[in-house]
Amino acid sequence: MNEQISQAVIRRLPRYYRYLGDLLMQGTERISSNELSVKMNSTASQIRQDLNNFGGFGQQGYGYNVKFLHDEIGKILGLDKVHNMIIVGAGNLAKAIVRYDKFERLGFPTLAMFDVNPELFGKTINGIKVYSLDELESFVKENRVDIAALTLPKQNAYDAANKLVGLGVKSIWNFAHVDLEFEDEDVVVENVHLSDSLMQLSYNITSRK
Amino acid sequence: MNEQISQAVIRRLPRYYRYLGDLLMQGTERISSNELSVKMNSTASQIRQDLNNFGGFGQQGYGYNVKFLHDEIGKILGLDKVHNMIIVGAGNLAKAIVRYDKFERLGFPTLAMFDVNPELFGKTINGIKVYSLDELESFVKENRVDIAALTLPKQNAYDAANKLVGLGVKSIWNFAHVDLEFEDEDVVVENVHLSDSLMQLSYNITSRK
Repeated sequence: MNEQISQAVIRRLPRYYRYLGDLLMQGTERISSNELSVKMNSTASQIRQDLNNFGGFGQQGYGYNVKFLHDEIGKILGLDKVHNMIIVGAGNLAKAIVRYDKFERLGFPTLAMFDVNPELFGKTINGIKVYSLDELESFVKENRVDIAALTLPKQNAYDAANKLVGLGVKSIWNFAHVDLEFEDEDVVVENVHLSDSLMQLSYNITSRK
Repeated sequence: MNEQISQAVIRRLPRYYRYLGDLLMQGTERISSNELSVKMNSTASQIRQDLNNFGGFGQQGYGYNVKFLHDEIGKILGLDKVHNMIIVGAGNLAKAIVRYDKFERLGFPTLAMFDVNPELFGKTINGIKVYSLDELESFVKENRVDIAALTLPKQNAYDAANKLVGLGVKSIWNFAHVDLEFEDEDVVVENVHLSDSLMQLSYNITSRK
C-alpha cells in the first residue's frame, strides 16, 4: 500500500495520527471529514483526498471510524512496532527527550544515553543510565538498537554517526546543527534544525509588519 | 521584494543561510552554483532558480558573493534585527535553548524564563533568571518582548499563549504538543512537533525494509 501514497500525504500523516489520537482519548468513535477539517484547520476535501489512500472506511453519512483510521495510519508510520532508541550526548536536550514519556508511549523507548563527560557516567535520568561513549560498541552488540538520537555538538556529529552506522545502527534522529548525509542508502536520517524553525518564525514576524 | 518570493523558496532560505554562514566561517568569498549544489545535496539549477529571487549577484564565471548573499538572505529572514525572547516553562527543553549560544548569535537573546514551580524562582541558567509566571505581565510591560517560546505541557499551552497575546506578545515558538492557532491574524506561530519528526523517521525506517 505504501508505494501508492505520495510524499506530501506521508508528511501529513503524523498530524492526522495526533488528531485522531486526541479524538480517541476523548472517546470519539466516529467523525465526519467536515468535523475533522474544522479541528485540523484544513478542508474537508483535502482530508477526504488524503484519507482515501487508506481504503474505503470513510462512509457517506457515517464518517470515519476513528480507532480504525488511527490504527491504520499508525501501521503505515511503523508505530505498530517498537523502535529501541539510544541517545548520544547526555545534555539538556537528551534529558528533555528521556523525560518526555510520550516517545516511549509511541513505541520509541530510550535504552541508554552516552556521553564523553566522566562526571555523567553511571548517572540515571528518568531511570535511563548514562554510559561512556567507549561502551557504545559493546552496548549496541548486546542490545537491539534501532534508532540513535544525536544531541551533541555539530563537530562531533559525523564521527558519532559514522561509528553508529558502522555498528549497524542505520536510523539517525539528528539534532546536531548539520545536515547529516550518507552514501549508504540504507541509512535514514531525520534532521531537526531548531534554528531553521526560529528563522521561519522571524521571517513571518518580519513579513507581517 | 518579499512579495515576489514563493513560500517554497522561503522555506528553503534558513538552509541556504546556514550553508552560506559555514562558507563565510571557512573564509570562502565566492562560490558557484555547482559547488554549492554539491555541498547542499541539491541541483545547480534549483539553486540558481532560488537565488535568482535575490537579484543579479550571481555572475557567469564568477559565482555568488558569499557574504553579500548571506546578508541579503539574513535581511529577508529578519535576522538583521534583534528579537528578544522569553521562555515559558523552565524545564529541560528551556535549559537546552538558553544554553545554546547560537540562538543569541542569530539575534534571539533570551531575556527571562517563567515557571509555576516556586523551587525554580530566582534561579539562573546560563545567566538567565527564572521568574514566577505571576510576574509575566509586569515583565512584559517593562521589557520589549518579541517572541515567547512555550516549553510547557500541552494542557497549559493555550492559557499561556492567550495571556501572552493579550499582553501584546504575538509571536509564539511553540514546543507544546498541540497546534496553536489564533483568530487574531497578527499572531504568528511556529509549532515544533518533535514527535512528528520521530514518526517521519519511523515511516522511513519501515518503508526502507
